[in-house]
Amino acid sequence: MKRNRIIVLLTDFGVDSPYVAQMKGVILQINPNVQIIDLTHSVHHQNITEASFIIKTSYQYFPKGSIFIAVVDPGVGTKRRLVCLTTDKYVFLAPDNGLLSGILKDNPKSKIYEITNRRYWLPGLSRTFHGRDILAPVAGYLSRGLPPPKVGRVIPDIKRHEIPIPQKKSNNIIGQIIFIDRFGNLITNMTRDILGRCDKLSVWLKNRKFFIDLSDTYADKDVGEVVALFGSSGYLEIAINQSNAHDVLRVKLGDKILVGVR
Amino acid sequence: MKRNRIIVLLTDFGVDSPYVAQMKGVILQINPNVQIIDLTHSVHHQNITEASFIIKTSYQYFPKGSIFIAVVDPGVGTKRRLVCLTTDKYVFLAPDNGLLSGILKDNPKSKIYEITNRRYWLPGLSRTFHGRDILAPVAGYLSRGLPPPKVGRVIPDIKRHEIPIPQKKSNNIIGQIIFIDRFGNLITNMTRDILGRCDKLSVWLKNRKFFIDLSDTYADKDVGEVVALFGSSGYLEIAINQSNAHDVLRVKLGDKILVGVR
Amino acid sequence: MKRNRIIVLLTDFGVDSPYVAQMKGVILQINPNVQIIDLTHSVHHQNITEASFIIKTSYQYFPKGSIFIAVVDPGVGTKRRLVCLTTDKYVFLAPDNGLLSGILKDNPKSKIYEITNRRYWLPGLSRTFHGRDILAPVAGYLSRGLPPPKVGRVIPDIKRHEIPIPQKKSNNIIGQIIFIDRFGNLITNMTRDILGRCDKLSVWLKNRKFFIDLSDTYADKDVGEVVALFGSSGYLEIAINQSNAHDVLRVKLGDKILVGVR
Repeated sequence: MKRNRIIVLLTDFGVDSPYVAQMKGVILQINPNVQIIDLTHSVHHQNITEASFIIKTSYQYFPKGSIFIAVVDPGVGTKRRLVCLTTDKYVFLAPDNGLLSGILKDNPKSKIYEITNRRYWLPGLSRTFHGRDILAPVAGYLSRGLPPPKVGRVIPDIKRHEIPIPQKKSNNIIGQIIFIDRFGNLITNMTRDILGRCDKLSVWLKNRKFFIDLSDTYADKDVGEVVALFGSSGYLEIAINQSNAHDVLRVKLGDKILVGVR
Repeated sequence: MKRNRIIVLLTDFGVDSPYVAQMKGVILQINPNVQIIDLTHSVHHQNITEASFIIKTSYQYFPKGSIFIAVVDPGVGTKRRLVCLTTDKYVFLAPDNGLLSGILKDNPKSKIYEITNRRYWLPGLSRTFHGRDILAPVAGYLSRGLPPPKVGRVIPDIKRHEIPIPQKKSNNIIGQIIFIDRFGNLITNMTRDILGRCDKLSVWLKNRKFFIDLSDTYADKDVGEVVALFGSSGYLEIAINQSNAHDVLRVKLGDKILVGVR
Repeated sequence: MKRNRIIVLLTDFGVDSPYVAQMKGVILQINPNVQIIDLTHSVHHQNITEASFIIKTSYQYFPKGSIFIAVVDPGVGTKRRLVCLTTDKYVFLAPDNGLLSGILKDNPKSKIYEITNRRYWLPGLSRTFHGRDILAPVAGYLSRGLPPPKVGRVIPDIKRHEIPIPQKKSNNIIGQIIFIDRFGNLITNMTRDILGRCDKLSVWLKNRKFFIDLSDTYADKDVGEVVALFGSSGYLEIAINQSNAHDVLRVKLGDKILVGVR
């Protein structure tokens, strides 16, 4: 059975943007048999940390051979490079602004190419939409079997923009809110490793303090109670059972959180 | 011609959620040739009535063989069951919280299975995301031809959560607003059956009373006038021609409506 | 290699509307191998100008043979016609309300058919949802190879609703804001032709006046500065580097803009 290739898109264009559709059109002109999946287009405007977190916690769910295009690109039209990073299973295309550093950290043997070969670009190149004019057609050709070295020259490294690492000071860990989902659940940058095996936490968030026992599920606590658990991506989440922690606790993306291990 | 299978997703995750994309990735790892369609991801948080209404009024438009995954799941991680319901044309996967009762009512000969066979689940099961870790891979295998009895044991029934049935008292019918579309049209739970052949209605909504002749189309009335018609799903709708009844009449999901037959 | 056909949808139903999904289901019942792409479903309610602009600036990015369905339809259920317009590369289906005039202007040799042949419609026709009941199935059959003349009789013309053309008076051009993207960039109806080769502009917008040198990219100016550039669709855009011109300048769709060539 001939397997169709998958191309996955992440941008900050907005879910319903005609710009996203134009990228899909360009891809399908080159390879009409590719299947295109939207990872998300709701990244906060030019928020590279949020985009990095989403791509790093999602890519491994996709089939081997999937090609990811990530366009969060405050520097479009300037001299920032465009890069192609290949791991043993996936290909990633993005501006060289740090968006892919989480992927490179997970896959230190990745090969990196600067995308310079205009042969695979759209002819009438715009200065403001390289996602459509460069990354989309390059992804289209790669999905048809173009070997990655054809897109440009090997480069030794990409720009780094690490997802902030939580800091541990004696029994306290200082981290931040790195993603907020539609339910208002607050996802932090803290994994199980950092917290150790402790299940009783004290949490400071926006000048309020909570004593919380770690739960397995949202429904472990009464309706309206604050819940702390390791969510489906493996990171500590603060939630409120059947309510919206984002609204109730008035926390926003990037806010600090301090967790004390009791 | 080999027909690709269709998998249809309904959740309350938000249309642009990376969680939805992760489910799609899991499905495509198992069957890269399936086509995935979003029914909606904007169900109000944990609103099982709204989700039931949407799935019940939409499933029959999809091709025979389509597999529906519905994830509105306030009880995720608790002991609530996950079920697989098969009709003569379709397969439905959902938590056993009443979401599928409308489907079972339409298809009383459906077979029902509790999803218990871990062989078709994702290996690293999370406690908070069974949509991705159980329902998505099970749908992937079913789309490849896995016989439904393989997913688990037959069970005699599912939990019921009927869409509220309007009550008739002499010439008055009491119902509720069960869905509001982007145009602000207010869809009630009243079908033609309940209203009989009468075309002149009196409508009480939020302490206001309207006398309305039933229309065939929104444009039958002047701009700004209240319209009542049986919409494309077969339910009575209250709308305002070229305006937004939801905003103007300040009605919200679940609000009561009383219709008098004159 | 058998190429799958592409069907592209534009509506004002809202991105996550079950109505859109029902259209997709109807198409896939007729042709399960078609690939369906969302152009946008966020057109402002019944805004034909905005819909025309989006379709006119996007269609050429899609593969030859793509079929576009555009449903912005204030007159649904009235006597307005439904039309099928074919160019040498594409097929467009829409209500006859001017939505396709930009396409016809680009492709004056297009053939136009009124969609009248009920053989290719859904049997239980609703009065309020011709997108699902007529245009979707007709697109499904066309994607399977039905010759366009089968959908109905040839007609000589469609209703015209031109995208407003900017007016030039000596050194001043009066135009309007015709599309606003998620970044808050204000796209005008002015192309390079009208402005000539001048690169120094004076811009009046909502009683404020700006002197701006045309840029190549958003990042040419300091953060927070107003930028004017010809965007990726070829139209003059007013933006603010790393900010949101829509919010900051309080401009809305349809607002006038006056550009003076210095």
